Amino acid sequence: MAPNKTLKGHKLVILTPWGPPVDFLDRLQKEYPDLKAEYHKRDWIDIALPSVADEGYWKDVTILLTFQTLPTPEQAPNLEYVQLMSAGANHILDNPLFKDTDVNFCTANGVHGPQISEWVISTYLSFSHHLPEYWDKQKEGRWQRGNMNVEDSYGKTVGILGYGSIGRQVARVSVAMGMKVHAYTLHPRPTPESRRDESWTPEGLGDPEGVLPSKWFSGETTEKLHEFLASGLDLLLISTPLTDNTRHLISAPEFKVLAAQKRTALVSNIGRGPIIHTDDLISALNEGLIGGAALDVTDPEPLPANHPLWNTKNVIITPHISGASVAYNQRVLAILEYNLKRFSEGKELTNRVNRKEGY
Amino acid sequence: MAPNKTLKGHKLVILTPWGPPVDFLDRLQKEYPDLKAEYHKRDWIDIALPSVADEGYWKDVTILLTFQTLPTPEQAPNLEYVQLMSAGANHILDNPLFKDTDVNFCTANGVHGPQISEWVISTYLSFSHHLPEYWDKQKEGRWQRGNMNVEDSYGKTVGILGYGSIGRQVARVSVAMGMKVHAYTLHPRPTPESRRDESWTPEGLGDPEGVLPSKWFSGETTEKLHEFLASGLDLLLISTPLTDNTRHLISAPEFKVLAAQKRTALVSNIGRGPIIHTDDLISALNEGLIGGAALDVTDPEPLPANHPLWNTKNVIITPHISGASVAYNQRVLAILEYNLKRFSEGKELTNRVNRKEGY
Repeated sequence: MAPNKTLKGHKLVILTPWGPPVDFLDRLQKEYPDLKAEYHKRDWIDIALPSVADEGYWKDVTILLTFQTLPTPEQAPNLEYVQLMSAGANHILDNPLFKDTDVNFCTANGVHGPQISEWVISTYLSFSHHLPEYWDKQKEGRWQRGNMNVEDSYGKTVGILGYGSIGRQVARVSVAMGMKVHAYTLHPRPTPESRRDESWTPEGLGDPEGVLPSKWFSGETTEKLHEFLASGLDLLLISTPLTDNTRHLISAPEFKVLAAQKRTALVSNIGRGPIIHTDDLISALNEGLIGGAALDVTDPEPLPANHPLWNTKNVIITPHISGASVAYNQRVLAILEYNLKRFSEGKELTNRVNRKEGY
Repeated sequence: MAPNKTLKGHKLVILTPWGPPVDFLDRLQKEYPDLKAEYHKRDWIDIALPSVADEGYWKDVTILLTFQTLPTPEQAPNLEYVQLMSAGANHILDNPLFKDTDVNFCTANGVHGPQISEWVISTYLSFSHHLPEYWDKQKEGRWQRGNMNVEDSYGKTVGILGYGSIGRQVARVSVAMGMKVHAYTLHPRPTPESRRDESWTPEGLGDPEGVLPSKWFSGETTEKLHEFLASGLDLLLISTPLTDNTRHLISAPEFKVLAAQKRTALVSNIGRGPIIHTDDLISALNEGLIGGAALDVTDPEPLPANHPLWNTKNVIITPHISGASVAYNQRVLAILEYNLKRFSEGKELTNRVNRKEGY
């Protein structure tokens, strides 16, 4: 791609639910004086295009920020780059604009790193510092010490199953607390190059170079997974996508491997509920094979009121909220801005959806 | 002091409540073949010396690890170094062994950094991620989203009032989460040298070089304090000792200064209760001048069952437990080991109590 410093001949359309990003558009206009940019409010659920005066409106649109509102390939023959508002792309894989063209689709991968890593760290520390116990006492007006058996994180080990943008930010905070990091990835990462993460990361966060883990594990076999789980983990973070290969990846045999090392590991799931076999988790908790579970995702989800998981001991459950952040909008715009700069410099865009792998 | 690599002629006595540190003593014996070392169990509250066969037992003791069990200067004429188990030294300032000799007394300063910083971070994140709300819902078996207004830490600012071992470790974790750090110290720290912390820190933790803050504030005047409080703080950590100067340091005028910037700051107190004016805090919370308060220490303490602070909104109260850690013992021994090495090399000991300032 040839550089185009002023983005001459380009038109950006922004379709988001948050209202016009006035400061952002002002900044773009200064940076790229020839870029045309327009905003239309579109809710997450909107699929229909906004009604605009001119029927040929999409003809000269080259760049689009959207969740799932997409023109047809015929309506927008000059579209070059679609920036999605979501970290995943599964909802557009069957859309003709994705399937039948070679328009660049980029995800908002990296937008969740700060808030979800904070959810992981805060639930982990809430466990080890017995905070829920003190919340209960506070409500009763009881100033009374409880379980003084506090295991702080210094010298502990976190195992991160799926070393992507969220896992890497959990690693950064864990290392700051004095923890060791063991990373597990699907494909082996033997070289410095292979350990890099080229996807977007908020400046100063994460582990873009892949230098924080002291041990790397990888593979698709149970044997390899068990090697990782047997590496002395105090915290096991599940931050991998749900696929046929990861469904029920953590079941009874895996809890046994964890327990053979120490029976105090906390299992934290911010991936998808079915990666853990729920009944096996309940047994593992009740039998004390693990120290606890922090679950932002469950199987089933929503978790019905009478589900036994609610009353299993040493569990923290939240209703799939760890990704919430008032900064979501700003970070999506930061990704767009980052990619516009690369676009103007003729460089390859970041967070591109691979048409073969579908993410 | 001349180096003495094998610690020839030295005798160490360890008086702790935790039982003999067998591995530690083995390791010392290998490192310092000429050192004699003995252990006697002594609870925190014990003041009397352990009864030992020989009346002249203390004559050749040169090094002592203890909390408050101390021989007289006459009993232990050869004592050179007393390692205290506590971070403070106020309980021994009037003891003749401290007052009337020049024996080196060293504190266990640094022993609290990991666990108390974790308390600070976990209560801060529990607030911003609304964890107590989900805790209540979980008990009722309700999978239901609540306040989705989550402000993650990226780009936020923590102000640390008292930049010692705890404050520096909070700074390390905060920076890993993408926060800016503003430090407040009593004395000005204009140079790199003055920003260093020479006291003991667990390896890899804290901010020994004082490089993490983006802004430094200092002084004893209200004006200087208000300058710091007006620097746009999202989290204000109180990690300073209680002295005549710090009593009620944070009162109504200070809450007003915070509120003039933003009315969402969280005030976190792990110092001592009376540093905050309790009635003014309750007003500030009820009037929404600040976003919340996380209090491990209160005034009065214990907080009586009927105290209005229990029912003030947006407050987390724990009963002075943030310093608890099962690793306390290990860290005290690590400080002793660190200082024995310096002792054997003829270097000045770390964490020495200044006889003039009393800490």
